[in-house]
Amino acid sequence: MISHDAYAVEPWCLREERLDLAVLPQSESLFALSNGHLGWRGTLDEGEPHGLPGSYLNGVYESVPLTTAEPVFGLPRTEQSVVNVTNGRVIRLLVDDQPFDLRYGRLHGHRRTLDLRTGVLERVVEWSAPSGRTVRVRSWRLVSLTQRAIGAVAYEVEPVDGTSRVVLQSELLANEQLPGDPPPALAGEEHAADGTRLRLVHRTRHSGQRLAVAAEHTVTGDGHPVLAAESTPDLARLTVTAELRPGQVLRLEKLVAHGWSAVRTLPAVRGQVDAALAAAQDAGWSGLLAEQREFLDAFWARADVELDGDPEIQQAVRFALFQVEQAAARAEERAVAAKGLTGSGLDGHCFWDSETFVLQVLTYTSPGAVAQALRWRHRTLPAARRRAHRLGLAGAAFPWRTIDGEDCSGYWPAGLASFHLNADIADAVVRYTSATDDLLFDREAGLELLVHTARLWRSLGHHDRDGAFHLDGVTGPDAYSALADDNVYTNLMAQQNLRAAADAAERNADLAVALGVSDEEIAAWREAALHLALPYDEVLDVHQQAAGFTRHEPWDFGATPPEEYPLAEHHPYFQLFRKQVVEQADLVLAMQLRGEAFSPAEKARNFAYYEALTVRDSALSAAGQAVLAAEVGHLRLAYDYLTESALIDLDDLRHDTRDGLHLAALAGTWIALVAGFGGMRHHGDTLAFAPRLPELLDRLAFTIQFQRRSLRVEITAAEAEYRLDEGPELELWHHGEVLTVPPHRAVRRPVPPAPELPEPAQPPGRPPPRRPEPDAPGAFDVPEVSGAPHESDAPHASDAPHESAPDEE
Amino acid sequence: MISHDAYAVEPWCLREERLDLAVLPQSESLFALSNGHLGWRGTLDEGEPHGLPGSYLNGVYESVPLTTAEPVFGLPRTEQSVVNVTNGRVIRLLVDDQPFDLRYGRLHGHRRTLDLRTGVLERVVEWSAPSGRTVRVRSWRLVSLTQRAIGAVAYEVEPVDGTSRVVLQSELLANEQLPGDPPPALAGEEHAADGTRLRLVHRTRHSGQRLAVAAEHTVTGDGHPVLAAESTPDLARLTVTAELRPGQVLRLEKLVAHGWSAVRTLPAVRGQVDAALAAAQDAGWSGLLAEQREFLDAFWARADVELDGDPEIQQAVRFALFQVEQAAARAEERAVAAKGLTGSGLDGHCFWDSETFVLQVLTYTSPGAVAQALRWRHRTLPAARRRAHRLGLAGAAFPWRTIDGEDCSGYWPAGLASFHLNADIADAVVRYTSATDDLLFDREAGLELLVHTARLWRSLGHHDRDGAFHLDGVTGPDAYSALADDNVYTNLMAQQNLRAAADAAERNADLAVALGVSDEEIAAWREAALHLALPYDEVLDVHQQAAGFTRHEPWDFGATPPEEYPLAEHHPYFQLFRKQVVEQADLVLAMQLRGEAFSPAEKARNFAYYEALTVRDSALSAAGQAVLAAEVGHLRLAYDYLTESALIDLDDLRHDTRDGLHLAALAGTWIALVAGFGGMRHHGDTLAFAPRLPELLDRLAFTIQFQRRSLRVEITAAEAEYRLDEGPELELWHHGEVLTVPPHRAVRRPVPPAPELPEPAQPPGRPPPRRPEPDAPGAFDVPEVSGAPHESDAPHASDAPHESAPDEE
Repeated sequence: MISHDAYAVEPWCLREERLDLAVLPQSESLFALSNGHLGWRGTLDEGEPHGLPGSYLNGVYESVPLTTAEPVFGLPRTEQSVVNVTNGRVIRLLVDDQPFDLRYGRLHGHRRTLDLRTGVLERVVEWSAPSGRTVRVRSWRLVSLTQRAIGAVAYEVEPVDGTSRVVLQSELLANEQLPGDPPPALAGEEHAADGTRLRLVHRTRHSGQRLAVAAEHTVTGDGHPVLAAESTPDLARLTVTAELRPGQVLRLEKLVAHGWSAVRTLPAVRGQVDAALAAAQDAGWSGLLAEQREFLDAFWARADVELDGDPEIQQAVRFALFQVEQAAARAEERAVAAKGLTGSGLDGHCFWDSETFVLQVLTYTSPGAVAQALRWRHRTLPAARRRAHRLGLAGAAFPWRTIDGEDCSGYWPAGLASFHLNADIADAVVRYTSATDDLLFDREAGLELLVHTARLWRSLGHHDRDGAFHLDGVTGPDAYSALADDNVYTNLMAQQNLRAAADAAERNADLAVALGVSDEEIAAWREAALHLALPYDEVLDVHQQAAGFTRHEPWDFGATPPEEYPLAEHHPYFQLFRKQVVEQADLVLAMQLRGEAFSPAEKARNFAYYEALTVRDSALSAAGQAVLAAEVGHLRLAYDYLTESALIDLDDLRHDTRDGLHLAALAGTWIALVAGFGGMRHHGDTLAFAPRLPELLDRLAFTIQFQRRSLRVEITAAEAEYRLDEGPELELWHHGEVLTVPPHRAVRRPVPPAPELPEPAQPPGRPPPRRPEPDAPGAFDVPEVSGAPHESDAPHASDAPHESAPDEE
Repeated sequence: MISHDAYAVEPWCLREERLDLAVLPQSESLFALSNGHLGWRGTLDEGEPHGLPGSYLNGVYESVPLTTAEPVFGLPRTEQSVVNVTNGRVIRLLVDDQPFDLRYGRLHGHRRTLDLRTGVLERVVEWSAPSGRTVRVRSWRLVSLTQRAIGAVAYEVEPVDGTSRVVLQSELLANEQLPGDPPPALAGEEHAADGTRLRLVHRTRHSGQRLAVAAEHTVTGDGHPVLAAESTPDLARLTVTAELRPGQVLRLEKLVAHGWSAVRTLPAVRGQVDAALAAAQDAGWSGLLAEQREFLDAFWARADVELDGDPEIQQAVRFALFQVEQAAARAEERAVAAKGLTGSGLDGHCFWDSETFVLQVLTYTSPGAVAQALRWRHRTLPAARRRAHRLGLAGAAFPWRTIDGEDCSGYWPAGLASFHLNADIADAVVRYTSATDDLLFDREAGLELLVHTARLWRSLGHHDRDGAFHLDGVTGPDAYSALADDNVYTNLMAQQNLRAAADAAERNADLAVALGVSDEEIAAWREAALHLALPYDEVLDVHQQAAGFTRHEPWDFGATPPEEYPLAEHHPYFQLFRKQVVEQADLVLAMQLRGEAFSPAEKARNFAYYEALTVRDSALSAAGQAVLAAEVGHLRLAYDYLTESALIDLDDLRHDTRDGLHLAALAGTWIALVAGFGGMRHHGDTLAFAPRLPELLDRLAFTIQFQRRSLRVEITAAEAEYRLDEGPELELWHHGEVLTVPPHRAVRRPVPPAPELPEPAQPPGRPPPRRPEPDAPGAFDVPEVSGAPHESDAPHASDAPHESAPDEE
């Protein structure tokens, strides 16, 4: 966990004021740059020290055998694991023959700043080599949001206290040594170094994907630099040597192009990166900077969330939005993985939370990215249909975890059985289609996705002797209650799926016929949807998460000490499955996504009941709990859940930020604010708000994109204002009242008081951390990095013994 | 499958009239000899050709890592796998420098006979070497039932058509090459060859168990034999060379002693086998033969089952009884594995069926072996208590599959969750204690087993708000319906367990106090037992195998072609678990073992309902179905199930007899006859019979041991006769009427007609094979092996090309 004040609180950037090697792996995730196609973790320019080096190309994976103790039919034999591809951002520095390695020497200042408006990671370092020579290094790094193959670095070095011979080594480095020393994944195919141009081509050993990385350099500045290039299969390197006097600056600009293909030949892939490099050279470093800023200006104009009263959450929600945007912006028919391209955690797989959390946010902020991500699902329909067939089911069964559409889950009770993923995809289709009126998508991808998932549900369920339609033996979002009958979340999402397929088929009758959809089939979908079973405990007057759930023995929370969380790491699934204990919002999430299926009183009772059972062992849980807590009136509790989602990575709350960011939980920050305190709901084609602020917030304003409109909502304790910045008049609901918002004219409505309800209890020891009152004004003055040594800056570095084994010199 | 008439039908032996290499692995299982401590598969004396060579010592295993795709808390990281120990029975033969290898040359006759009364496997071979020289070989092999460390072989060779130089090589062979070439499991520690004495000592590489095998030889006969002994770490060998004229016989007697220990030193284990060899030499070959016969005479006197009308089943039930007896006779505080010591199938593990099937039979035939097997469970109580603690439970949780008491199951839904095993152990304790009045066992082992399993159930279950006691999320015998609430089999067996523990604690109040059993705890057990939930479907008027079962979708049997059985090899568990399809008798087995908990009408309705869902993908299923079919009046169907159990290995019905015999199904042969057509039930301390013969049988007679009595029951279509051959008068029930049987005086009662019920249906394609009418008289004339070539005998051998690669000469 990052418990100290690692990052300054600022509205538009994430700034680290000193280098702390203990949290270096976490900072690599937080400072990761990506565009959805290429991901560069925030490693130091010189490559080392590092936590988990990582460069990723969306879709590039290696095949790894999956082993099971006792073979089980229907499980995959191999899985896909994201590969650390050739690292194109390394720039090593020698100062008078001493490597620039921050573990040695003396660090006077080290600042890294991720600017959320420019999309650039800036670094400023001042350091004395063990020999005593002091240099200042500045670098700027970006992964281009406009040229998806391109990452770029600008690097400057300047001696401070004497003339120095400096050597820069700009590298393309393949098969980097990783923690745990896994065998090298890449086999070299071609290497080249010519002038300032470098290129490496490799293939993954088992999955046979070909990838190429090429770099072009511009060297400017003082010291009469001398250049030399060389290459071997796993290393291409440009060496720049110069002698600099104090104040003289040597500058290197490096453009790095990436390309890969599972089908194209070596010349084609080589051509691909060379072409990308040519386009980037055409823009040049300054052109790339300008494009990046323009891209992000447009994003913030359509997506920004402002809040008054809690600067830390203001920063966190913008950081979250930035991460969500950069994970998906240019994914273009590839998956948006659970960790985006910020780390290799969860093997780089994409799960249901991509649709349910990340695409939910993007639907109202970057809808184009949603279409792309859902077109990726559509592209994997053939694999999903084969999988359904193999499982004895109709339609399509999308894989629980995957990179390219093939299932990678070796643990079936919480993998294969989690069929709700299919309804979650359908939910994202319904949401996107309604929010955009994108009829082309509807015809080209949406309809098929809905039809094949509806067919899955129809074949998965059955009508009982009383006509009720049941989905037996499935696993809902709560991974601690698997293989249950009639999971309410799953059933409600399947119900929407069945109806949406019927609607889409009727809307696109011509295409539906081509898919073999008959009137009989549509009628069967509607019949199943109409009679879907929703287990209810009449005595406790609450919904059952699944049939029988509320009759099960409650987990003995009193006998569970704090160190036994997450429970699945200390207790057998056998015990978790059969008891009343909830890993993450399940029924509570259903009450958000299918809120129209519950009465307000049911929501309040259900929320209180499940709140006492939910341990939040999943990062996905807090957002849904925030939304429902806000809806039923527990605004302070909702704020605590918002905070947990918002700070999950900035404070490394789950101790695994090193493996990559929790994109869905970051998306949950927006959800907790907009759907929680904004009370936004989008059921069917209806857009509704029920805003209500917690005491900690003075104002909340957000912009969303909806049906070719840009709607700005601004909320204070007393009233809400709706304003259309773009698009024709819009009908929406405010706390149950229907409003018509005309173009460019604000409509205001008072906010009614929250209902008074007894505060619900969480399991002992499991309430969310109570959000302290926000920091006093003035807390945001950020100290400058100065040239003078800060004794307090780097005790870990400057106080460490100056080891200098020969091979480190 | 063995579809031809491989074995002659004879009442007291299993005779193979010709060698069929295609079923050699199966015959190795069928001709396996064992005493429960040592197991020798029925490989040919000369070692090759072979199917699956195997020599086993009960308890000797190797540790093997268990791997899982996604780690799950509470599952073992290593498993135990039975090891093929040093093979002491190899006697190779060279005839005029040509190896005696039945794949080459010409086979004139080959007969093997397992005599169920002498316990000796006899072999007679006449064979011409490729050179043309013909020899006759006879051998006799036994694994001593009286000297548990000892196996022995007598071997004779005689030239038929000319003078031959013959060489015998009697070997101890460690790390035999096995199919699949696994790495050698044994590391040599010591080897010795001195005169006619051979010895090898090894340790298993990972589990570190030490084992020694030693042999002593006696050479007699003609030809002035010359002897030489030698040894290397994995081979000790005595070579005997002699020149024999036609009619002259060279005879070798070989006594082989086996010993092992996980704790004793090399000198101790060496001394152990030398001592065993000294005792065996004292008896000599003929003494061992006599002891063997005496042991088996006593066994058959107390355990034989006779039937008129079906000689094949007569043979099969005696074969089954012989196998059950030899699997357990001298196990002595070791497990009785699912395959005994007849093969390495299921890794040599012991499961629940040991208690429920094998020990059920032995309770009434060899009760001493039951005490030993249950004392083994008692010896593993510390491991079972640790396991329960690890799983968050009280008492003891015995492992689903094990060799030495540590869990070896890597698939938890059908392993860890199958808690019924614990009640099955308690059931065996209750049955044994009641059947023997063995109060010493009760105090030394039974009480503790009952108390710790009762504590498990109490902690595993909970009372609901209405007071009902539930056992949620467990797996019953039916492995196709896992993790269900209130499995009726489990609940009824747990109910008996809880009550038996309460009874035992009250009976042994002093010891119970020492175990910390309080009056409160006893009351809690009785309370839980009283209120155990038994799900019932009021509409269908049948019990639910588990809560919700009868509401689930029925399996689509019509869409399941025959080649998709066993279902688990062609369908995902996900589908099996959530549908109405039953792998093996579950509720039906409950109606046998807890028959007093059901009314006759309930039994008939339940049987019919579950019969239509039961696919018998487990070998364990048929016996319980036979018993209930007989009870509710489907006598012909019961006979078909009896036959399936009886011929499971003789006809290789499941295509896996090569891996070892199905001991529990073989035990099921006795159960189908005695509990089925004999209608024997032993609930509480009551012994009851409800005999009723199927038309195919004219007479059924069996002897059982009960409370120090030997009771003989003889049944015809018209009447049943009860006679005490030993012991004081006995009260028993006959078709609901209580009888007092005085010593040595037969009591006869008429057999009432069976109720008329509609024939129940099985799933399409899954009825048991209909038993044909028995063979006509005269079918049992057994052809003699003659010296003349039988063209029809060995087409596989004599027609095969006479390959003679140099290294085979």
